[in-house]
Amino acid sequence: MPTKPQILKRRLECQSRLFRVESLDLRFSNGAERTFERLLGGGVPAVIVVPMLDDQRVILVREYGAGIDDYCLSLPKGRVDEGETLAEAANRELKEEAGYGARRLTLLKCMTQAPNYLQHRTQIVLAQDLYPERLEGDEPEPLEVEVFHLAEMADWLERGDISEARTIAALYLARDYLQANG
Amino acid sequence: MPTKPQILKRRLECQSRLFRVESLDLRFSNGAERTFERLLGGGVPAVIVVPMLDDQRVILVREYGAGIDDYCLSLPKGRVDEGETLAEAANRELKEEAGYGARRLTLLKCMTQAPNYLQHRTQIVLAQDLYPERLEGDEPEPLEVEVFHLAEMADWLERGDISEARTIAALYLARDYLQANG
Repeated sequence: MPTKPQILKRRLECQSRLFRVESLDLRFSNGAERTFERLLGGGVPAVIVVPMLDDQRVILVREYGAGIDDYCLSLPKGRVDEGETLAEAANRELKEEAGYGARRLTLLKCMTQAPNYLQHRTQIVLAQDLYPERLEGDEPEPLEVEVFHLAEMADWLERGDISEARTIAALYLARDYLQANG
Repeated sequence: MPTKPQILKRRLECQSRLFRVESLDLRFSNGAERTFERLLGGGVPAVIVVPMLDDQRVILVREYGAGIDDYCLSLPKGRVDEGETLAEAANRELKEEAGYGARRLTLLKCMTQAPNYLQHRTQIVLAQDLYPERLEGDEPEPLEVEVFHLAEMADWLERGDISEARTIAALYLARDYLQANG
């Protein structure tokens, strides 16, 4: 592995209710110096849940995304709250967003999003042995739930409203895992 | 499709050299009101390139990611510069980061990253019929290139240094496309 650049200086550039932007003055091992900016993730991990009704049927939720000002279909996800384990957060988000709990949770992978400028990490959790249970979340409106078949994934991934990179990556990794461990 | 919430007010919350944070006061169709924050993408699309040496061998590059303060392996990617087409940007990034040009470029999908709070979109471009050509980019150090086989993807995706959601999603979509159109 290459030697990591030395961080010469860190500055908080700006801050809002949700976001903190930090700049890093860096010196690379070849002597080159650069200033990069990044968005801090606050050290709070996020979780994305792949809820399987059986080995074929997966649940997606339709939610308004303020980032793109449009509705899209994605896997249930959210932040791990303080004091929560990853499994507890996965199950809570699943109950709040999709109306199911899970008896079996399996951690598949830790994903980054855009390592160049985002500190954020998202844990992919496969949820199986589901049972109906709804928790009140902080969503402004109830989310619509849709069920898709993994065998036809290539077809429905062509839809414009299924576009989130983390959702697509998590679905494929879950499909691989289920095929290998089915 | 549900009715999109009405945007009652938009405010620029903070701004750095690279980032702009906007808050949106929203009224959902059921009357619920929320204030959400999002990171503006500046209307500049990004491109991620899947460079295939043949129908099996794909090129990844090892780059320092300031967001996670570590090196990781991902597909070549970057912003589309002003006046550039998507194909031109894909080929430029490929030459700068991997040392190859491509005679054949195919747009596979437009991805979002975290639609809840990021405006950013990334176009996945499959690059084939490669030839060696290097362009000087603005990278602080030359990127190391590694070649992987798609047939063994499930194995090397277990590596901790291959973690980027966009890279994983793009690799799977390219593999599906190559299998269907091979």
